[in-house]
Amino acid sequence: MTSQKATNITWHAATITRRLREEKNGHRGVVIWFTGLSGSGKSTLSQAVEAVLFERGCHTYTLDGDNIRHGLNKDLGFSAEDRHENIRRIGEAAKLFADAGLVVMTAFISPYVKDRQMARGLNPPGDFIEVFCDCSLDVCEDRDPKGLYKKARRGEIKHFTGIDDPYEAPPEPEITVHTDRETVEESVATIVTYLEDTGYIAKGQ
Amino acid sequence: MTSQKATNITWHAATITRRLREEKNGHRGVVIWFTGLSGSGKSTLSQAVEAVLFERGCHTYTLDGDNIRHGLNKDLGFSAEDRHENIRRIGEAAKLFADAGLVVMTAFISPYVKDRQMARGLNPPGDFIEVFCDCSLDVCEDRDPKGLYKKARRGEIKHFTGIDDPYEAPPEPEITVHTDRETVEESVATIVTYLEDTGYIAKGQ
Repeated sequence: MTSQKATNITWHAATITRRLREEKNGHRGVVIWFTGLSGSGKSTLSQAVEAVLFERGCHTYTLDGDNIRHGLNKDLGFSAEDRHENIRRIGEAAKLFADAGLVVMTAFISPYVKDRQMARGLNPPGDFIEVFCDCSLDVCEDRDPKGLYKKARRGEIKHFTGIDDPYEAPPEPEITVHTDRETVEESVATIVTYLEDTGYIAKGQ
Repeated sequence: MTSQKATNITWHAATITRRLREEKNGHRGVVIWFTGLSGSGKSTLSQAVEAVLFERGCHTYTLDGDNIRHGLNKDLGFSAEDRHENIRRIGEAAKLFADAGLVVMTAFISPYVKDRQMARGLNPPGDFIEVFCDCSLDVCEDRDPKGLYKKARRGEIKHFTGIDDPYEAPPEPEITVHTDRETVEESVATIVTYLEDTGYIAKGQ
């Protein structure tokens, strides 16, 4: 070592707990789990919520296809077993982020009630907010942002949710946003208001 | 909805990037990868570094056996393949935390050079700091905090690193701490000084 060492290192054998992180951040850690058809606005909405929360000083992160499919879950395909494991790992990763004190959003179709319940069950009670992006198949297919519906209709993609694989709507989501007839701002307001009303973040924070 | 919605929701289609998060946090996101024998002080040291950084206002998290083995990696055993996958997932999870702007520490034996290089390679250059907790086997076995060496010597645990499985010391770690002849405070100071000198955190932050 040629450089001078940091001085005034004090360490009281303290473990930094979730509570301490939350106190410092000024908000609670929580998983916001977006679910809905492809094209229902999950990614758009999660990014918009993240932007609003970030401006209000909250610490946030989003898990989505971009950073999960080519990373943590790149070994998984689309068999029933792999789809289940895909959701399990996303649920476990999200749990770690909530424990780290962040508001973590997940944006995946996650079509099956059972898998979403499993992801919820991984987390402590109250740590999991399910947001149903309720959008008709017609509207999603009309938007078709990635051209996936066209491919599915041509049979180039099999087991595509909404076409030849079912989407199971949440029976009791904490929040439903009607992304086929609301603006993004309206949906964001619904979610942020929920977070305020339930004490995850401070009002007007 | 019976409650009033959050007002002044503004959203400019902004994506919250890593850079924005780092600017807000006042420090860079980075993976600090502790490696060393069982009993070499990886967990103690990572917790101590986390406590010091937390007091200095940094945003931190630690991935260790407690939150990984029974969660994200609970489906993995101790075969060569599973050990490799264990390290891969830890590397991918840590990468997400660094992307989220946190100083994330990992505290796992991670005995093989090849696996640690793989974990390093998952991350962008400069995002991975390998900390070798250099501690003689004698000292580790004497400490034996979990009684694992005794079990391994009695043959009750097979393939135990240092006993009947090799530990491959890092040829070029960013940092080496001699945890068999330094105090925790001294090792912490070495690591925090490195973070300062290389610009991951501000000096005297």
